[in-house]
Amino acid sequence: MLKILIDCFGGDHSPDANVCGALMELEQFSDLHMILTGDEATLKNCLAGQDYDASRISIVHAPEVIGCDEKPIDAVRLKRESSMMKAVRMLRDEDDIAAMVSTGSTGALVAAALTRIGRVRGVIRPAFCPILPTMDGGKVGICDSGANVEVTPEMLRQFAIMSSLYMQHVYGVKSPRIAMLNVGKEAEKGDDIHQQAYKLLCETPEINFVGNMESRDLLSGRYDVVVADGFSGNVLVKTTEGTALELLKKLKKDIYSRTIYKLGALLMKKMFADEKEFMNYQNYGGSVLLGTSKTVVKGHGSSKAVSVAKCIEQAYLMEQSALAAKTEEIIIKYEHYED
Amino acid sequence: MLKILIDCFGGDHSPDANVCGALMELEQFSDLHMILTGDEATLKNCLAGQDYDASRISIVHAPEVIGCDEKPIDAVRLKRESSMMKAVRMLRDEDDIAAMVSTGSTGALVAAALTRIGRVRGVIRPAFCPILPTMDGGKVGICDSGANVEVTPEMLRQFAIMSSLYMQHVYGVKSPRIAMLNVGKEAEKGDDIHQQAYKLLCETPEINFVGNMESRDLLSGRYDVVVADGFSGNVLVKTTEGTALELLKKLKKDIYSRTIYKLGALLMKKMFADEKEFMNYQNYGGSVLLGTSKTVVKGHGSSKAVSVAKCIEQAYLMEQSALAAKTEEIIIKYEHYED
Repeated sequence: MLKILIDCFGGDHSPDANVCGALMELEQFSDLHMILTGDEATLKNCLAGQDYDASRISIVHAPEVIGCDEKPIDAVRLKRESSMMKAVRMLRDEDDIAAMVSTGSTGALVAAALTRIGRVRGVIRPAFCPILPTMDGGKVGICDSGANVEVTPEMLRQFAIMSSLYMQHVYGVKSPRIAMLNVGKEAEKGDDIHQQAYKLLCETPEINFVGNMESRDLLSGRYDVVVADGFSGNVLVKTTEGTALELLKKLKKDIYSRTIYKLGALLMKKMFADEKEFMNYQNYGGSVLLGTSKTVVKGHGSSKAVSVAKCIEQAYLMEQSALAAKTEEIIIKYEHYED
Repeated sequence: MLKILIDCFGGDHSPDANVCGALMELEQFSDLHMILTGDEATLKNCLAGQDYDASRISIVHAPEVIGCDEKPIDAVRLKRESSMMKAVRMLRDEDDIAAMVSTGSTGALVAAALTRIGRVRGVIRPAFCPILPTMDGGKVGICDSGANVEVTPEMLRQFAIMSSLYMQHVYGVKSPRIAMLNVGKEAEKGDDIHQQAYKLLCETPEINFVGNMESRDLLSGRYDVVVADGFSGNVLVKTTEGTALELLKKLKKDIYSRTIYKLGALLMKKMFADEKEFMNYQNYGGSVLLGTSKTVVKGHGSSKAVSVAKCIEQAYLMEQSALAAKTEEIIIKYEHYED
């Protein structure tokens, strides 16, 4: 049995979405066991009347919830009885638990993962790697998307190694094309950190580094992973999601402005529904944290059941592919560089 | 007469677009005189047969062109006879010339402006401020969008002061709402530089600082200016443009995939044309460089005549509003902070 924890509180649609997502994945993977953390009575209520294999689900009572506006460090230290911190401690302490999924506070989860869960040997700092859809039907990972607002060149190389392995082993991409986010394509673009990182990436035969990428090419389908410092990576991901959502909203508003448009849109109903689904980040799972010794997946705060299920699937596949061990093998080759 | 230089070479549609744009603005502003730099014979050819007031246009012969792939510093030093560098020198040397517009190499233009054109007294570094349309029909400026990949907190404050005055005096926005690009809304988000800048922005009564902005809210219409370091500001602008273009391309492709969609789109033809125009950055002019003692406007490399005309209009309005003097007045109050 592969045991995965799910923090059932802290998201906008918690705990229902989290519980439903867990049940969906129990159907999907017959060797999966889910451990739900959170208020026991509430969770039992959520499960009541549902059809599932009770031997493959357990509840760990955790009466507290970490809110999104709480200071991460304080939350981690003081809310020991929260659904998130109970899950983190169990993940750390129990050898047979493989991974955890949370839709709660990102800051608290990062702080808890950094201080309570160990790193893969040689990894300087874990990094987030969410996935976005590309216009040719593929996908692109962005690493880091916000765990580290300050980086070193060696950290950027590690992000490249970790995310390359992730795309390879979890998404089956052969020789992932890795680019670095920069203000221009030329090697000498950006600040010192990016210029040095460019050199390091060129000197790393374990990855297929294809050069700098300008942000307007993110969705082009020409890249499988984009390596970025956590600040601009965060801007990249949120701008893409924001622009897509705002544009779809504008289209909808404009359609309602004239009868003839409404008529036209009626004929295109299925197409517009498809576009909406295509741009719906709920369909692409969460941000996995790469470089921690045990798998941590952060779902969007607004995750619904289908998105939670995707996050659990990501955690499951990461564990199945023994990603941590594969990461260590390459990372330690370059470990001395940072000293 | 207000004299504005236009570098007629170096853009994708140069020199035709540049010459046409100049003629359009001569029609628009009766007190405008345009000085065209570039190969004289080619420019005369472009003007031949056009209807314009020859007394308000002059040509300065410049046989060389700076390419987009040339190293900026080398180009500035070695291509003295280029259309860009001739314009830059004339702008510097001739008191009665107010401004210049170029659609050539951004790097070369920034290098030339920094080394050849002076700064407004007190300004640490000039910054780019392009404009994007917001979903409620307004506009938002992004400052800096790429001139400075590394910044200090005081530089971010100066970007805020300069861009606030720009939105106020060129676009008539009363008390522009200024936000700072960050990875979250809270004051303590981001690295040290952004945290310190947050404090400085709060302590600057001359601007209406409304707090941090997450990049997904750029097009919401809730902000008039977003202050950013040049690296993430560049990512913000290019991701927005890139996502919008890619989405429109996808819509078009999907429409052609089924007859019924094509039929629907026929009814919505005008709407789709409007959306395309709305997202077409050609309609929003160029990036003005704020903080130089004389006005420099950089148009997109892909600028067509209408976009070049917009850039000239921006330069004209900046000069009319005596922006440099107004900027200096506020900036020097805080000048000692950086020492």
